[in-house]
Amino acid sequence: MSAGSIFIWEMLGTSVLVLLGTAVVANNTLRKTIGNGAGFLFITFGWAFAVFAGASIAAPSGAHINPAVTLGLAISGQTEWADVPIYFAGQMVGGVLGAVLCWATYKLQFDDHPEPGLTLGIFSTAPTIRKPAWNLVTEIIGTFVLVAWILLTPVYEPAVNGEVPTFGNSALGYAGVAFVVLVIGTSLGGPTGYAINPARDLGPRIAYAFILPIKGKGKADWGYSWVPVVGPLVGAALAALLFLVLPTA
Amino acid sequence: MSAGSIFIWEMLGTSVLVLLGTAVVANNTLRKTIGNGAGFLFITFGWAFAVFAGASIAAPSGAHINPAVTLGLAISGQTEWADVPIYFAGQMVGGVLGAVLCWATYKLQFDDHPEPGLTLGIFSTAPTIRKPAWNLVTEIIGTFVLVAWILLTPVYEPAVNGEVPTFGNSALGYAGVAFVVLVIGTSLGGPTGYAINPARDLGPRIAYAFILPIKGKGKADWGYSWVPVVGPLVGAALAALLFLVLPTA
Amino acid sequence: MSAGSIFIWEMLGTSVLVLLGTAVVANNTLRKTIGNGAGFLFITFGWAFAVFAGASIAAPSGAHINPAVTLGLAISGQTEWADVPIYFAGQMVGGVLGAVLCWATYKLQFDDHPEPGLTLGIFSTAPTIRKPAWNLVTEIIGTFVLVAWILLTPVYEPAVNGEVPTFGNSALGYAGVAFVVLVIGTSLGGPTGYAINPARDLGPRIAYAFILPIKGKGKADWGYSWVPVVGPLVGAALAALLFLVLPTA
Amino acid sequence: MSAGSIFIWEMLGTSVLVLLGTAVVANNTLRKTIGNGAGFLFITFGWAFAVFAGASIAAPSGAHINPAVTLGLAISGQTEWADVPIYFAGQMVGGVLGAVLCWATYKLQFDDHPEPGLTLGIFSTAPTIRKPAWNLVTEIIGTFVLVAWILLTPVYEPAVNGEVPTFGNSALGYAGVAFVVLVIGTSLGGPTGYAINPARDLGPRIAYAFILPIKGKGKADWGYSWVPVVGPLVGAALAALLFLVLPTA
Repeated sequence: MSAGSIFIWEMLGTSVLVLLGTAVVANNTLRKTIGNGAGFLFITFGWAFAVFAGASIAAPSGAHINPAVTLGLAISGQTEWADVPIYFAGQMVGGVLGAVLCWATYKLQFDDHPEPGLTLGIFSTAPTIRKPAWNLVTEIIGTFVLVAWILLTPVYEPAVNGEVPTFGNSALGYAGVAFVVLVIGTSLGGPTGYAINPARDLGPRIAYAFILPIKGKGKADWGYSWVPVVGPLVGAALAALLFLVLPTA
Repeated sequence: MSAGSIFIWEMLGTSVLVLLGTAVVANNTLRKTIGNGAGFLFITFGWAFAVFAGASIAAPSGAHINPAVTLGLAISGQTEWADVPIYFAGQMVGGVLGAVLCWATYKLQFDDHPEPGLTLGIFSTAPTIRKPAWNLVTEIIGTFVLVAWILLTPVYEPAVNGEVPTFGNSALGYAGVAFVVLVIGTSLGGPTGYAINPARDLGPRIAYAFILPIKGKGKADWGYSWVPVVGPLVGAALAALLFLVLPTA
Repeated sequence: MSAGSIFIWEMLGTSVLVLLGTAVVANNTLRKTIGNGAGFLFITFGWAFAVFAGASIAAPSGAHINPAVTLGLAISGQTEWADVPIYFAGQMVGGVLGAVLCWATYKLQFDDHPEPGLTLGIFSTAPTIRKPAWNLVTEIIGTFVLVAWILLTPVYEPAVNGEVPTFGNSALGYAGVAFVVLVIGTSLGGPTGYAINPARDLGPRIAYAFILPIKGKGKADWGYSWVPVVGPLVGAALAALLFLVLPTA
Repeated sequence: MSAGSIFIWEMLGTSVLVLLGTAVVANNTLRKTIGNGAGFLFITFGWAFAVFAGASIAAPSGAHINPAVTLGLAISGQTEWADVPIYFAGQMVGGVLGAVLCWATYKLQFDDHPEPGLTLGIFSTAPTIRKPAWNLVTEIIGTFVLVAWILLTPVYEPAVNGEVPTFGNSALGYAGVAFVVLVIGTSLGGPTGYAINPARDLGPRIAYAFILPIKGKGKADWGYSWVPVVGPLVGAALAALLFLVLPTA
């Protein structure tokens, strides 16, 4: 697949992922919405099926939509290292674009919100207790489960005839990854909000800091921003190493 | 497929969609129901699997049950323009019929409800903050995601041997579109109630205004009624244009 | 398939359906349970996947587990009339057995419950507003949607080589019927508690009246008991008639 | 399959199951989490898709991840008795490991929790009313439904060419078992918290008693610990006996 196609499909898929994922938090958080206060189960369903929608749109490029997934597939020999920067670029641009679309969807609600300084949490994650070393552990474990599942289950199909590996041509594999993201959210999302995807966290953070015209918006919390980037990449690398040492089934 | 068959299957599927979708709001809203006050997650599940039921019933005609989907498929060359008015007619008649069936299901609860003037929201959408231009943006983005997903994923299968394109002969594709409607609801439904389907909004509005015998019922809010018609059609057209310019996978 | 096999598989499937379905209401209703007060979304998920479990167990006999489904398949020519009484017998015995197993599961909680006279609602349905004619309309519409979906979608596969028709050899079709029962519950369950299955309502009612040793238990409300039997059978018959007059896809 | 491979895959799958399952309770229970107080529907979704993730990772060894499932398959002749101790060992080690990973994920929250003496419930089950005989009945019925479903439905595929039987090479069967665990949770989980798996209960209990460094932690409640071991094994044996006496479909 050409670099241009990889860039376009990953950008599209990631922008849909981030639009839908950040928007479910906006719906839960902002004052004048129908979903105000709907709760954490509501949010985990939103993010899970945001992954379903984004991944099934990015099917032609292998449905990564996450630099951690790309890294795990590269280490395990299923994605070429030369393509990795293209994947990352598409994912990051998609992450920024999705956040802008989320803002446009909820523009009137952002204008109306009484505490605009507290809206970063709609776009990027933050820990409930701030201790970077343990926050990192939480993000590593969450992403390890995600990438290990993709690498180890028979659901993600190996490459055939030079095609990219993928979840296949049906809704099935994409539902599978949505179910895994749902349970990572319900179970491992409690301490840090389960970034488990650098583009999902850093892209919207960049959009929040430099692009979104939210009056009275808060700081972008750059001091924490490295945790949801480094943690997922480390977790993915560990999952890929496990994959390489396991006996073939 | 004959015009008569298209009309019948789209009418059946859309009436089931609108019956189940408006009824989940009735269950949540009306006073003497078991689901009273069950919340927005409950409502988004109801509408999502209303789409599952309606779309899988309308499988023979391609499972559009939404004029925006029909328009997107026509622009992208997958539905013949000559059939478009037949699809629209079946969908609109189905939308009216579904609203009547919802009323019949909850007849006793409508009679008992203390605020019959506020029951339009069971049938048709309304924005939480009324500014048509931005409400339109929200509906355009929501429908864009729906129609882009249908056109871009491998789940909706191209036409074979003169058959209509469809979600296939299993529950799989229909579950996929239900998952996408679920996440559009949780994520993009906050500002306007996610019509994302002109027949789903205009059909019940017509039924409410001219047919349903609800004592003390309110106005049909015709001033807003164009937004959930124009927004979805524009969003679908944009998704189809994107489909046409993208590289083939 | 032999009469004995039909009886056994339908009894097994229906007993699992009724055990799981009545037990989710017990969990929500009784005082000393972990799920106490979990709400109507919780209950609709319980009943939906009770159908998944029961129907996939009853796969060999066609997964009816509901006299209304059997009637619809008989009228539409997909089940032999001679087998109908066997199906009904297995379903009714299963309905009674499932209620007994529910009681055994929650025996300690029934003993502890402060209002044992109000426990019929765990086992059988009741309307929120009692007017049999309109309660009947609600049950007819709910069952019509269920049986029309089974008959009209491509998910329920026609008989091959003298085998019974079925949802197939995968989890797929059974998930489909679970999704439809989920949305019938969320959307049409508000007024009468969606019996949509005579064996699911009458079987547990018989168990409650004549078998279950609940101290201080209430009456079995025989005056209403015909509605959740007649309504589903009429709804199924109407769906089968629709199936017979529709053009073949 | 070699004993080493069985051990590794069962250990991996069970550790993911127990990590995700105990963590959803931690998220719901501990004070400084995003999912605090999210409720029992939230917990049942977490455990259900914890089974999805764990079982699909353990696909090469047949996806048991539960000694009760292994026993049921052995009695019914689908797993060799010589392999049973290997399965049990992998599952128990996985259960302990999963609990340790759950503690690491929520380390900061455990340190902060005001009632560390009440944290056993995050890891192991307890009855709401303590009467071992009836608690045993509840666990027997719950596990009977699980193992009967696996043995009786066509979803779990028989062994082919010396391979182990499995849920197949797609997400489908694993979603099916997740749905069954979801409904067992919502419906039969009210009295005892549905262990339905000795390794899921005893493994974390051992970790809690002897490994986890939670300051001020409570007792491990060894007096009850035999119920969630014996009950599931008895329920699985009864399901296997039913399987053996039923007519072949």
